[in-house]
Amino acid sequence: MIPNENVKTFPLKEVPHYKVHGRTDRSQELLPLFWNGSAIEVNVTGSELWIDIDVDFDVHEPWVCCAVNGAIMSRQMLMPGSYSLCLFRGMNPENVKNVQFIRELQAMSEDDACRILIRGLRADGDFLPIPERKFKLEFVGDSITSGEGTYGAKKEEDWIPMFMSASRNYAFLTAQALDAEARLISQGGWGVLCGWDNNPHHNIPTYYTQICGLAGGPVNEALGAQKDNPFSEWQPDAVIVNLGTNDCSAFSQPEWSDPESGETFRQHLNEDGSFHADDLARFEQAVVDFLYVIRRNNPSAYIVWTYGMLGYRLSLAIADAINTFRSKTGDIKTFFLQLPNTTEETVGSHAHPGSASHKRAAKVLTEYLQELLNA
Amino acid sequence: MIPNENVKTFPLKEVPHYKVHGRTDRSQELLPLFWNGSAIEVNVTGSELWIDIDVDFDVHEPWVCCAVNGAIMSRQMLMPGSYSLCLFRGMNPENVKNVQFIRELQAMSEDDACRILIRGLRADGDFLPIPERKFKLEFVGDSITSGEGTYGAKKEEDWIPMFMSASRNYAFLTAQALDAEARLISQGGWGVLCGWDNNPHHNIPTYYTQICGLAGGPVNEALGAQKDNPFSEWQPDAVIVNLGTNDCSAFSQPEWSDPESGETFRQHLNEDGSFHADDLARFEQAVVDFLYVIRRNNPSAYIVWTYGMLGYRLSLAIADAINTFRSKTGDIKTFFLQLPNTTEETVGSHAHPGSASHKRAAKVLTEYLQELLNA
Amino acid sequence: MIPNENVKTFPLKEVPHYKVHGRTDRSQELLPLFWNGSAIEVNVTGSELWIDIDVDFDVHEPWVCCAVNGAIMSRQMLMPGSYSLCLFRGMNPENVKNVQFIRELQAMSEDDACRILIRGLRADGDFLPIPERKFKLEFVGDSITSGEGTYGAKKEEDWIPMFMSASRNYAFLTAQALDAEARLISQGGWGVLCGWDNNPHHNIPTYYTQICGLAGGPVNEALGAQKDNPFSEWQPDAVIVNLGTNDCSAFSQPEWSDPESGETFRQHLNEDGSFHADDLARFEQAVVDFLYVIRRNNPSAYIVWTYGMLGYRLSLAIADAINTFRSKTGDIKTFFLQLPNTTEETVGSHAHPGSASHKRAAKVLTEYLQELLNA
Amino acid sequence: MIPNENVKTFPLKEVPHYKVHGRTDRSQELLPLFWNGSAIEVNVTGSELWIDIDVDFDVHEPWVCCAVNGAIMSRQMLMPGSYSLCLFRGMNPENVKNVQFIRELQAMSEDDACRILIRGLRADGDFLPIPERKFKLEFVGDSITSGEGTYGAKKEEDWIPMFMSASRNYAFLTAQALDAEARLISQGGWGVLCGWDNNPHHNIPTYYTQICGLAGGPVNEALGAQKDNPFSEWQPDAVIVNLGTNDCSAFSQPEWSDPESGETFRQHLNEDGSFHADDLARFEQAVVDFLYVIRRNNPSAYIVWTYGMLGYRLSLAIADAINTFRSKTGDIKTFFLQLPNTTEETVGSHAHPGSASHKRAAKVLTEYLQELLNA
Repeated sequence: MIPNENVKTFPLKEVPHYKVHGRTDRSQELLPLFWNGSAIEVNVTGSELWIDIDVDFDVHEPWVCCAVNGAIMSRQMLMPGSYSLCLFRGMNPENVKNVQFIRELQAMSEDDACRILIRGLRADGDFLPIPERKFKLEFVGDSITSGEGTYGAKKEEDWIPMFMSASRNYAFLTAQALDAEARLISQGGWGVLCGWDNNPHHNIPTYYTQICGLAGGPVNEALGAQKDNPFSEWQPDAVIVNLGTNDCSAFSQPEWSDPESGETFRQHLNEDGSFHADDLARFEQAVVDFLYVIRRNNPSAYIVWTYGMLGYRLSLAIADAINTFRSKTGDIKTFFLQLPNTTEETVGSHAHPGSASHKRAAKVLTEYLQELLNA
Repeated sequence: MIPNENVKTFPLKEVPHYKVHGRTDRSQELLPLFWNGSAIEVNVTGSELWIDIDVDFDVHEPWVCCAVNGAIMSRQMLMPGSYSLCLFRGMNPENVKNVQFIRELQAMSEDDACRILIRGLRADGDFLPIPERKFKLEFVGDSITSGEGTYGAKKEEDWIPMFMSASRNYAFLTAQALDAEARLISQGGWGVLCGWDNNPHHNIPTYYTQICGLAGGPVNEALGAQKDNPFSEWQPDAVIVNLGTNDCSAFSQPEWSDPESGETFRQHLNEDGSFHADDLARFEQAVVDFLYVIRRNNPSAYIVWTYGMLGYRLSLAIADAINTFRSKTGDIKTFFLQLPNTTEETVGSHAHPGSASHKRAAKVLTEYLQELLNA
Repeated sequence: MIPNENVKTFPLKEVPHYKVHGRTDRSQELLPLFWNGSAIEVNVTGSELWIDIDVDFDVHEPWVCCAVNGAIMSRQMLMPGSYSLCLFRGMNPENVKNVQFIRELQAMSEDDACRILIRGLRADGDFLPIPERKFKLEFVGDSITSGEGTYGAKKEEDWIPMFMSASRNYAFLTAQALDAEARLISQGGWGVLCGWDNNPHHNIPTYYTQICGLAGGPVNEALGAQKDNPFSEWQPDAVIVNLGTNDCSAFSQPEWSDPESGETFRQHLNEDGSFHADDLARFEQAVVDFLYVIRRNNPSAYIVWTYGMLGYRLSLAIADAINTFRSKTGDIKTFFLQLPNTTEETVGSHAHPGSASHKRAAKVLTEYLQELLNA
Repeated sequence: MIPNENVKTFPLKEVPHYKVHGRTDRSQELLPLFWNGSAIEVNVTGSELWIDIDVDFDVHEPWVCCAVNGAIMSRQMLMPGSYSLCLFRGMNPENVKNVQFIRELQAMSEDDACRILIRGLRADGDFLPIPERKFKLEFVGDSITSGEGTYGAKKEEDWIPMFMSASRNYAFLTAQALDAEARLISQGGWGVLCGWDNNPHHNIPTYYTQICGLAGGPVNEALGAQKDNPFSEWQPDAVIVNLGTNDCSAFSQPEWSDPESGETFRQHLNEDGSFHADDLARFEQAVVDFLYVIRRNNPSAYIVWTYGMLGYRLSLAIADAINTFRSKTGDIKTFFLQLPNTTEETVGSHAHPGSASHKRAAKVLTEYLQELLNA
């Protein structure tokens, strides 16, 4: 490789203009990308651009992708270490290139060592301001919002990072269509009340107010993951929740029990297959409680609870909870939207919504938000 | 035209095998096709087939279409009179042709003279039995279910029969995809509680239990329109309701008043644009009441209340009413499904859902019913 | 029907403004629509419009369709007689409606009695000028250009008018996309040199210079069908030929022989399945000769010979003939374009290209002409 | 990263089963992937798989992608060095994974240092036999076959490796649809007779019989690039040529001249914009000559010359050359197929066919080959 003598290294904080996407702790020396869809964005001239990163994990390797002028150019898994990745080379140095370096993998509650940190950038051009996008959107969800199934063959049955993404998921597609910034908070298998396996600790609301509270362990703590999220610094126009799918699964699963504490939890079905009333009420209460939390932290945002991409069964319960919340609070900016279910035709890997299902859901959601946000 | 000497005339009741689609009074000498989607179906050999009809109207002419082996071949307006229409000619006499002669125009509450009566058939072949379809579906709705907008240029602004149809509407497409018989009960501009203009008499529930009660006047009465519908003779697997769109419009319209009786009616918005609580409650009660009526007459059917093709605003209210009904009755076979809204891209004539919007809605609904009915 | 007292009857020649589409003899008292795609077009105000027609046939009934503001509203078969058809009713009388009454059925060389004659129009509004379209296109073809297969179920095997159309055929779709007037000259089963069954009289070139020479018998003669076409009155921007498909079939068919004259004709395959050189040369010569005829009568038009919608086998032979013609004449405005073949997925009735195949071909052809005509 | 102790390293030649795609010199110690679409394929059990590669370049970095079970999982640029890439991790060790490691970048005639060499694989599972695919296809082309434009935003104007691919190009898509092995031989800017800029050395035929003759310099020579291609070892069912696009451009470009030798070359247009006869003849002769070369080396293959994805202008000349070749040789297995042109809607980066254009072309070509190969 003929070396480019003009490339200069910039610690991230010395980059004149850059934008950080996704909840993170901006006081860190090295900037963590905690969530899928978290990203660094620059507008840069020059012929080439590199990013300096620190990566680690125990079991689940992080994946990233890179978009140049809005088009995804690369997607790859990251190995542990401190190294540089070239994001583009050989381009006309005069032109301004918009580049986004994006985390594909969800935050990993099951791998405390998993992390991507941005050390800085290398370039032979100038960094220019990045215009504000038209809207700000926050997406809160489970494996669907983690993009599980958006990559990989239909026959795949493994639960691994390779099959998850930001790049093909409905949240990313919706944001792109609306010219919006997107923040994703999601965890595969988790719910509003409990996880798919009745684990009551696997609920998003518990961690919603932290930057990335479900990323555990001392390293993540040091990276600021458990800090309170500074909501006032980034107020979304809409919060889109896509939860309930795992809460629904829980009703058909055996009791969860903690081998250590002996704690147990279970949502029950009646004999006729309907949801047990008390357990359903418990689920609905969790929805109501979460809406209070969201509203408290996002006072002027539209809240749209979406549901349906992996089955519609809890639709009426979710709507009931929203109605309860609305009638208790008079909050008229909270809504319910079903997204089309995934079918044989649109399913992706690991029995999750494939790229076609995400596209269809994104279309319905985009149209919905378009009407809401322009109103 | 070289005459076909072999064609014989059959009064309808002497046709050996035929199937009637749509609610009607089978005791009539001449069979009325009251609703859009109402049809006569035969399996017939021979080279040609004719239908003898009696047609009349004052203002709104009826339209029909004809499907041969499942493909729509013709669509035309009907003039008043008693005459024959040729449905096919010159075909291989050995083959069995499946033919459906279908009313395109909704029942016309605004034209008491509007009618299509089937007198009989003419054929040079044999009539054969028609196998049962897999499912029976009843659709109850407004202009969307009347297929308004499914024909005609986007710029059209007239409210006329030409732009309405069974052939391109979501109900018909859904039935076709599921191999189901479909019955449609619908009226443009009407709602569950009141019409788009706050007219409280323009509600479907009042007429649901009659064969076609909204078709008024002595002629329709003589044709059996006001008779009780014999529900026990045709029990659907699912009743799909698509109402609420005009109830929503009413909230933004001026008060309706009856020039004669002085009666008035109005649904109100609050100053912040939200629905007035009492009026919303009145709407929800109408939904609940209608669900009781539907359930009473269709004891084992799934009931799916669909909504959204012309705006989602009453979603939560409808869901609330369904929840109320379910909790009062323990009825777990009643559901709520949003159908994707119509957009600039998918709108048809007269600002109504176009063919593309109906196709999209039909896909979502078909997938939904597939899961429900195979369960 | 409440009569409309304001409707006035206009013999066609007294209609203040109207446009005739398709080759015809404008000196006739009653205007014949000879070819599929032939039409009468008006811009008219008023609430309703009727057309007065004279129709006859022996065996093959003509079909028509009607477009209002560019959207097809009706399609129906016509019975013999002299009568009126209503084209629209009940529309806002102020608005200008663009209406086209279009022949769906090809000219019928096999039924000398088959005809549609336009007697006049009835309206309660005013007839306004019709702006010129951007381009003029002439399409010359066989069953593909006659739209055979564009209506009807896939399983259909009858050769009947019901399955043919202008409304769904590639020629019509292309013209619409380019804002062009279209004239169609086509006959199912015919070729450049001979018909699908080796009948050497079933070739389009013999009749190309007449108005509609293949419509035979004294009635058609009286209607002007055999008259020379007045090319100078309507010069197309492009002539699109779509012939060769039946010439290709002929190579695989038994010898044709005339039972009366004893005349025989046959195109042969070699034993290895390739085309016999002399017969192929004879075919190519027919292409060359036809190009001379087209060019002579359309001196400044682009000529685009298209081929492929029912198989590509004669592609190289056609290209060779075009090359011969170009090198002999120096004519650089003559071209060759393959249109995508029809597949299992896109086939229509009677094993002919279905609506999806016509749409795909129209897209490729539209793009091609766009480049050519804007150049 | 928790290390996997079970991973063993296999020099490539000790891998029990693997398949090499693309022309290469199999006698090399380290296996070169010369062309885009060149690949190593394995069927492997175990939880993870790594590939050991040696990479270098001066200016144009190579890109690769990796498909797992037929789905593209990653795509990335490669930096110089000798290192390992992980292709999957954490998968169910029992299952057999089909993995292809694929070169995305065309052979690079402008960068003698550019190379990807396969050293070996690392795995904790077993390598299993790879079943033969149904067909073998060879694609010979220019930038279209190099997939230029298939990645990147529409506004991109740089000529860089990032925008080229095997993964989204029509050749790859066609092979996938037909269950075929594909070999690609292509070079952006090159033609049959000369390059887009009239450079007469930039023609594919000169190098067709070598493994990868256009990859120059001592390193490539040592890697076997200039060796004769062992055609007998891999005989394709069809050779698809997609050349002529740059030959067409040359007619509109200024004269090429070699600054050193003074050699010049130019194809001319006549004043009326048509091709100069002598120059066109020279182009056609190059097509004929190339067909001889292809036929000699692929005696029983179908040869399909495709053309049109970036303009149809040389269609008749190419067809003429094919006709000449067929009539001189009696070769009836050589064909001509136009592929649909690229439009505003389907264009990709750098004014080249985008992913949508490649998909459309692949569909037409797939259907064509399906008929040819099953015949």
